[in-house]
Amino acid sequence: MTRAAVILSGCGHTDGAEIREAVLSLLALDQRGVAVEMFAPDIPQKHVYDCLNNAELSPSRNVLQEAARIARGQIQPLVECAATSFDMLVIPGGFGVAKNLSNFAEKGKDAEILPAFASIVRDFFAQKKPIAALCIAPAVLAVTLKDAGITVTIGEDAGCAAAIEACGNIHQQAPSHEAVIDRQHRIATCSAYMREDAISPIAKGIDACIAAAVEMAAQAKQHAA
Amino acid sequence: MTRAAVILSGCGHTDGAEIREAVLSLLALDQRGVAVEMFAPDIPQKHVYDCLNNAELSPSRNVLQEAARIARGQIQPLVECAATSFDMLVIPGGFGVAKNLSNFAEKGKDAEILPAFASIVRDFFAQKKPIAALCIAPAVLAVTLKDAGITVTIGEDAGCAAAIEACGNIHQQAPSHEAVIDRQHRIATCSAYMREDAISPIAKGIDACIAAAVEMAAQAKQHAA
Repeated sequence: MTRAAVILSGCGHTDGAEIREAVLSLLALDQRGVAVEMFAPDIPQKHVYDCLNNAELSPSRNVLQEAARIARGQIQPLVECAATSFDMLVIPGGFGVAKNLSNFAEKGKDAEILPAFASIVRDFFAQKKPIAALCIAPAVLAVTLKDAGITVTIGEDAGCAAAIEACGNIHQQAPSHEAVIDRQHRIATCSAYMREDAISPIAKGIDACIAAAVEMAAQAKQHAA
Repeated sequence: MTRAAVILSGCGHTDGAEIREAVLSLLALDQRGVAVEMFAPDIPQKHVYDCLNNAELSPSRNVLQEAARIARGQIQPLVECAATSFDMLVIPGGFGVAKNLSNFAEKGKDAEILPAFASIVRDFFAQKKPIAALCIAPAVLAVTLKDAGITVTIGEDAGCAAAIEACGNIHQQAPSHEAVIDRQHRIATCSAYMREDAISPIAKGIDACIAAAVEMAAQAKQHAA
């Protein structure tokens, strides 16, 4: 059975994990019989953002506690995630990836990456285990894997595409319903809610992204066997 | 074009709307070309519950603000929801339905229903517009529509089934991947996360539930035309 680690960065697109991307990833994984464990950092959120009134709220919230809402309590601290225990990694998007797992939202290509997150990503990559990244997560992946020459998509956002290229990686445009697959580096990405699109095409893109990562994970296991 | 009102009760299964049920409902609606508007009451949550550590958190949160996380900000106060503007109603589950839209979690069959929610439900029912309800929502529907003789499912929970029957309505057992359709009263229900089941069969049940409600809404419109 293929085992996937899913990293969540909170609960809500403005300050945490994009909820729909997380749920649709879990659905695509379960539909393919993948065993899932979820992880999130046990740290305060960068901030709490009320997306109804466009205002910051206080007090702060904890990323792991809020991510537990999506995970229905079945989630562990990020530091517990070991690449050796899994066949693939999934990183749904949302501003949490650019605010809690890194400071990409502030610093772009010069972002600092949360150390625990960076080492997990680098471990999966070094162990040639597929990584699926959605929405803004491919840009943060490109910063984390500087000069790796990976090809990813965040849709068509020019600023993010430039940051990806500035990190020695390649950006490829794609519509919401498609995924970009870098078979050489075992990276699958899709733009998801980088565009305020309808949920059906976004779900299609996520399904294609996860499907490719699951397929590459199965191939890698077969190869190793 | 069919128009659906979706009522959310917060964000998270222990104190608000069940996130996955809400997302999978939105997906099933969009896949059938239904235009969706979302609503939630602009009231404090009954409480904030940390489902990671099983503890109550303070301070309180606002149901509408938290529901906006699922709705990506595209949500209106519940009092703005008029049955005349829609062809069908969708009520995802989660404890928010039993704690914020009613006090069913405390009082069962004797629950008081949030007046704005009760009048919306009764308006849709009186106007013969289909209602889809998920998880615990069918039980709260049964309390709201006392003695209507509607048939619903909440899966197999004996206590909830008894409350439904005590309200002069009918409970029918169903597995996670199936919906119960009461064509006479235009009510579609499924158990969803009343069982801690895998997301795929639950998604199947939700899809069947929404599909039936959309179909009944189309038939009702054709009949009226």
